Amino acid sequence: MAKIDLNCDMGESFGAYTIGADEAAAPYITSANVACGFHAGDPMVMERTVALLKSHGVAIGAHPGFPDLLGFGRRNLAASPKEAKAYVQYQIGALQAFCKASGSTLQHVKPHGALYNMAGKDGALAKAVCEAVAETDDRLILLCPASSQMHAAAKALGLRTACEVFADRAYEEDGSLVPRTKPGAMITDEDEAIARVIDMVEKGKVRTITGKEIEIRADSVCVHGDGEKALLFVQKIRSALQAAGIELAPLAQII
Amino acid sequence: MAKIDLNCDMGESFGAYTIGADEAAAPYITSANVACGFHAGDPMVMERTVALLKSHGVAIGAHPGFPDLLGFGRRNLAASPKEAKAYVQYQIGALQAFCKASGSTLQHVKPHGALYNMAGKDGALAKAVCEAVAETDDRLILLCPASSQMHAAAKALGLRTACEVFADRAYEEDGSLVPRTKPGAMITDEDEAIARVIDMVEKGKVRTITGKEIEIRADSVCVHGDGEKALLFVQKIRSALQAAGIELAPLAQII
Amino acid sequence: MAKIDLNCDMGESFGAYTIGADEAAAPYITSANVACGFHAGDPMVMERTVALLKSHGVAIGAHPGFPDLLGFGRRNLAASPKEAKAYVQYQIGALQAFCKASGSTLQHVKPHGALYNMAGKDGALAKAVCEAVAETDDRLILLCPASSQMHAAAKALGLRTACEVFADRAYEEDGSLVPRTKPGAMITDEDEAIARVIDMVEKGKVRTITGKEIEIRADSVCVHGDGEKALLFVQKIRSALQAAGIELAPLAQII
Amino acid sequence: MAKIDLNCDMGESFGAYTIGADEAAAPYITSANVACGFHAGDPMVMERTVALLKSHGVAIGAHPGFPDLLGFGRRNLAASPKEAKAYVQYQIGALQAFCKASGSTLQHVKPHGALYNMAGKDGALAKAVCEAVAETDDRLILLCPASSQMHAAAKALGLRTACEVFADRAYEEDGSLVPRTKPGAMITDEDEAIARVIDMVEKGKVRTITGKEIEIRADSVCVHGDGEKALLFVQKIRSALQAAGIELAPLAQII
Repeated sequence: MAKIDLNCDMGESFGAYTIGADEAAAPYITSANVACGFHAGDPMVMERTVALLKSHGVAIGAHPGFPDLLGFGRRNLAASPKEAKAYVQYQIGALQAFCKASGSTLQHVKPHGALYNMAGKDGALAKAVCEAVAETDDRLILLCPASSQMHAAAKALGLRTACEVFADRAYEEDGSLVPRTKPGAMITDEDEAIARVIDMVEKGKVRTITGKEIEIRADSVCVHGDGEKALLFVQKIRSALQAAGIELAPLAQII
Repeated sequence: MAKIDLNCDMGESFGAYTIGADEAAAPYITSANVACGFHAGDPMVMERTVALLKSHGVAIGAHPGFPDLLGFGRRNLAASPKEAKAYVQYQIGALQAFCKASGSTLQHVKPHGALYNMAGKDGALAKAVCEAVAETDDRLILLCPASSQMHAAAKALGLRTACEVFADRAYEEDGSLVPRTKPGAMITDEDEAIARVIDMVEKGKVRTITGKEIEIRADSVCVHGDGEKALLFVQKIRSALQAAGIELAPLAQII
Repeated sequence: MAKIDLNCDMGESFGAYTIGADEAAAPYITSANVACGFHAGDPMVMERTVALLKSHGVAIGAHPGFPDLLGFGRRNLAASPKEAKAYVQYQIGALQAFCKASGSTLQHVKPHGALYNMAGKDGALAKAVCEAVAETDDRLILLCPASSQMHAAAKALGLRTACEVFADRAYEEDGSLVPRTKPGAMITDEDEAIARVIDMVEKGKVRTITGKEIEIRADSVCVHGDGEKALLFVQKIRSALQAAGIELAPLAQII
Repeated sequence: MAKIDLNCDMGESFGAYTIGADEAAAPYITSANVACGFHAGDPMVMERTVALLKSHGVAIGAHPGFPDLLGFGRRNLAASPKEAKAYVQYQIGALQAFCKASGSTLQHVKPHGALYNMAGKDGALAKAVCEAVAETDDRLILLCPASSQMHAAAKALGLRTACEVFADRAYEEDGSLVPRTKPGAMITDEDEAIARVIDMVEKGKVRTITGKEIEIRADSVCVHGDGEKALLFVQKIRSALQAAGIELAPLAQII
């Protein structure tokens, strides 16, 4: 039976500030990427988020980002690989403390925002991120796109990996995402987006923006839990996947 | 054979900023309290400090503080027990990541500055700190003064504890430190300070500022590694303790 | 003709995080207390908020707080008077830059949260805050409760002051607020709250929780703009004040 | 009589952390670039630094940087021009508060580190920085290299500019600095460095790394005050300039 994971960013609130609708989204996803206090999140939010995820049986992942709360970790920062490695280790460890306290186990790591994008393209940064994961806990799964430098670096290190796909994004022939600035980059029709995901899961293939069919590894679909529209889409894709006979399961049960 | 630990704060540098002389002090101490990025320290500094301590066989402890880099964690902050607990868990976890990556094991936790002082007197805060330690890793040792609320809370939770004494401070009859503002609070004569420590280790007793002899538990002496004078004193007390036939050993070998 | 100002906290968003409904509240108030980046707010938010307030003719005030974004400036911090003074100067200056760039003039300063509370009771802290205001720009108005140490310190320094009252809070006989923990502290009936404010403005008197009538200086009413209920109350009290023939005007036109 | 300014970064300490030897360097320079709390510095340090500079008759400049204390503002950050503009305004305003309180006037603005480098090459960022300066206070001088995008943007806006040169760096034919990674980038011989500066001031010319003589505008020499060697060089270049009959004066007396 085909299986897929639904992963969603969570725990992005900070102090008096709220982002996301974690309580509402938790029942529909199978894995969560929890912010670790650098680009979002704080110790109280992390503790609360881990408890919420545990109560819903959602697998917990670390979502380390650059130390840029002001920019929500979305701005490229010229951190060295050594710095990025230490930032990732620090954040994984911090989240693990709350997992241990709640009797949970950390399942995966998915870098956030600018770190995700930069380490996706830069081999040295990708290696640093993967070493951080492997040295902190070699049972952790790295969640990343199949076509990224992170995936290659994780393979080279012997790290377990899971590959994520995007329902609402078009793909280039090399398996990378079509940049948002290009026409056709976004799949705006929800039914088309869902049909594409089902194909990716069942056949391991996707039709690129050029019309060619390429192979793609889909272990997880990245979904969003903030905003009413995003939440409705999560429910819709979840139902559609189940209706297609695809089992929803956390990463660790898939790879 | 009597044993004692020498503990010292380390890893207090931050980015381009340096505090302390960790390389110089490491050879003379047996346990180090490593700053965890809230009041001092950063991920790169933590990684470097753990490596330094490992190379000298110094046992590693977490030194969690309030999120107040600007005040170096020395200013009282009205954090709730729940907040303090989450801050301590986060910081322990972050340091554990570097310990694991380097093949070391975290030995103890000693709260820093204002958190140390406040949790020393406030039972609810003390309980929160101890729960944070116990829930994150119940093999960790809490390093604190014997007369503190932290010590009482740790005992109540079944947490392992180690008690620290101060060579350069006078004691009240209840085992607490004489406030610095009171005359006679500081033991300025180094030989007297060392003689007092030897008595505390060998006899488990200290003469209070009132002249009375009280019992005191001394598992560790708190020393300082910043500044030439502090460093010379560490070497001097180390030699004196060894000359008195007292073995220097990390906390885990003492309690 | 009796006059009153309505003051409201604004500019409390930070990076990707939103707090408050500034656009919705701006049309109904006469003065705004703008967060300055320490407990809330950031440079982009400050620029946007100053532009918004200017477009609605709302007078601009600085709302300096403790450097505690994580606690939203609501937690007491043992900052020294010298530190608090420098924090207030820094924040006033930062906001003045945006006022100057937009062709506006800063009208007042109202400390935020824990700084407001602590400087309300502690004479040395109150003096430090007032000196910060006076030395940065001696035309600025300090907005504070009439019964506070800040008011006394401002008077002693020759600083212009404006006194704020709270529609939804009961008063003690000395003009201080009844602590929230005491029964009767909150005036929950909106009509009663509004009637009390009209009395304070017209007669300069308020009935205390003990039933006694005391004098009270009311230059401004503190209102809130976050949440639908708060916003409706601002509109309601505004209408009621106008219906009672009381003119709404910024502080600078009142004192 | 030929004139030159000596500018030096100051006020880079933070909380318990010290960087630089401001007291030692202040007597030898004519203008200082004061950190404003984003990449270095804090309100207490700024107040202290402004007082120190005033007591030595050193002209005060703002040294705004990226919000990256951990990286000391030296790491490129993909801030938008709008963000950079707001950051610069905020920091100028904050420093102006301390200038006003001490009865001083802010003379100039020199961006720091990565912001200086990025705005030196990127026209949109350069324009944003210059607008920030002009809108906050149009009497301020922008201190930058003559060959930079910042200089061009300042000219276009009608902002006053001063051009700085580097004693220890080789120049390309277009007036830009030879990158540190290229051989010959550093002028390591102090006497040669000083002779080059005297030529730049007296003749307005410098010999490039290729051997060609180009025109260069030298209003100020960038010097460093941290470390014994740097301090000795400041004293040496100062004496050499005076011996050559060149007057040392702050920027405002030169341009």
